Amino acid sequence: MKIIILGFGAVGQGVARVISMKKDYLRSKYNLNPKIVAVCDRSGAAIHEDGLDEELLLETKTGKGKISLYPEYGIPGMDSLQVLDEIEYDCLVEVTPTDIDDGEPTRSHIIKAMEGGKDVVTSNKGPLALSFQELADCAKTNNVEFKFEASVGGAMPILNFAHENLAGCHIESIYGILNGTTNYILSRMANEGSSYEQTLKEAQEMGIAETDPYQDVEGVDAACKIVILANSVLNLPVTLKDVEVEGISRITSESIALAKKEGLLIKLIGEASPNALEVSPRLVSQGSPFAVEGTLNVATLKTDLADEVTVVGKGAGSVETASAIISDIISIWKRRR
Amino acid sequence: MKIIILGFGAVGQGVARVISMKKDYLRSKYNLNPKIVAVCDRSGAAIHEDGLDEELLLETKTGKGKISLYPEYGIPGMDSLQVLDEIEYDCLVEVTPTDIDDGEPTRSHIIKAMEGGKDVVTSNKGPLALSFQELADCAKTNNVEFKFEASVGGAMPILNFAHENLAGCHIESIYGILNGTTNYILSRMANEGSSYEQTLKEAQEMGIAETDPYQDVEGVDAACKIVILANSVLNLPVTLKDVEVEGISRITSESIALAKKEGLLIKLIGEASPNALEVSPRLVSQGSPFAVEGTLNVATLKTDLADEVTVVGKGAGSVETASAIISDIISIWKRRR
Repeated sequence: MKIIILGFGAVGQGVARVISMKKDYLRSKYNLNPKIVAVCDRSGAAIHEDGLDEELLLETKTGKGKISLYPEYGIPGMDSLQVLDEIEYDCLVEVTPTDIDDGEPTRSHIIKAMEGGKDVVTSNKGPLALSFQELADCAKTNNVEFKFEASVGGAMPILNFAHENLAGCHIESIYGILNGTTNYILSRMANEGSSYEQTLKEAQEMGIAETDPYQDVEGVDAACKIVILANSVLNLPVTLKDVEVEGISRITSESIALAKKEGLLIKLIGEASPNALEVSPRLVSQGSPFAVEGTLNVATLKTDLADEVTVVGKGAGSVETASAIISDIISIWKRRR
Repeated sequence: MKIIILGFGAVGQGVARVISMKKDYLRSKYNLNPKIVAVCDRSGAAIHEDGLDEELLLETKTGKGKISLYPEYGIPGMDSLQVLDEIEYDCLVEVTPTDIDDGEPTRSHIIKAMEGGKDVVTSNKGPLALSFQELADCAKTNNVEFKFEASVGGAMPILNFAHENLAGCHIESIYGILNGTTNYILSRMANEGSSYEQTLKEAQEMGIAETDPYQDVEGVDAACKIVILANSVLNLPVTLKDVEVEGISRITSESIALAKKEGLLIKLIGEASPNALEVSPRLVSQGSPFAVEGTLNVATLKTDLADEVTVVGKGAGSVETASAIISDIISIWKRRR
């Protein structure tokens, strides 16, 4: 299976690392032999039809900062769309940074790959939140596989879980803590009585919150995930603008302390149902599956037969997110052979 | 798909109810048309090759107490092994009460069905906890499907989750709250400061604990589930006698109060790993996925790539447990056609 990786940040590097670590396992368990034939970052590309060496890819990126400096097969300045024309491949792994204004260039990458008859795996929320139906239709028209488990909750396997494990159930609605940064901030405010501003600053120093925390703390990231869940699991053809969003930046330590007195916690909860599409701070009980702390993500599926079923997992992390991408790759491989 | 249901208690009735409710859904989504051709309880059987009416089965059982009084097609006194010879079928749904001394008569039902080339779905822990490898080998030898999602955690889909959703991961160990009754008792003791004896009595009055609570409160039920998880997910060929078991009957309200002061809870935790196979009361943190209350079950899979992934769901309930059986039936149907 020949793979192109577009984007070589934390997730892309995680994919290379996992493929390197799991070579024997993938071959013996699934008869799968993934070969990375091209990798692209802002600097250009590295391309080789016999497959690039995963460890050398990682060394080049961490040591020299640019994948185009890969020995012998690096091509400085080659652009990502060009890479897709340059070499034969089976599956595009699209892991460039998320853009939520127009979803580009990811959207174009994905459509070009699909129109060329290639399967696509992505962790990129942007184009899914903006034009899910267009991409799903494009996959259908071109009869290719399109998988995006890593786009919602990193290592928390919610999409495949909803589709495969609850086969006999109708899923009525989904609730979740879908952003690890805000869960970390709110948990810490509750445990230490600290202010929002101070806790955010500490989270930034620890690398848990980004320098520009807007998308996380104002609920935009969680809203993107709600859109993906609504489309993929509930078949609701909605986009980001349909979600009512309120973030956590106005939550005070006083309100958290008040809730705590009553055995309650304040969490940033996303909801997708035929009646509501929103992200907002809500009260949850101690002792409920939503009371989890730290950067954990959690999602509850409300079903007709099994009542509520919940999944909890790490929402981020290089290898963790890559594990979801590898699951998608294995599932494509199983259907294709 | 012609189905025989052996055992017509809460779970068996749940299966009939779900098949009745979901007829159109199963036909339109999976092209699956399940037909219950025989049902057996202690009183005898009801058998009809064109399929029995699900609503009439439920009415007969709840109204008259005996399935052998099913109009026209009831056969008083017919024994369960005989039923398997009496009529053509594709899949045995074995949902008789669990016996953990010799796993009979479930074990014989399952082996007879498999040797006849039939697929088997069961919720019955007994024979799995006592002779998992024998049954798994029998399924393999006879090239039939053998599924038992409902045997661990009712509506919490842990087995298929481990096998399918974490395809790229190696699962190193499993921890879980696998018994709803003990979780209910411990949660209530923590919230109300009540004694073990008093809380057990209340749980019995509410129908949450059984009149003879031994298997639940002494950890035997959880130990059976640990054996099933160890065999099925970790490939460890162990049986019930390999599990070190300690129940909750010696836990005092004082010890729970002491733990609570430190932000900790006492839960009955089962562990399956290559190094340990045990069920015992342990301390867990508030804010961890194990802090869930009520009759909920929870299981955490420790993996090499995705770190810890957790599933939470209802551990019991007629329709809830039946939903796991229907998932298994759908998965068999998908492979068979």
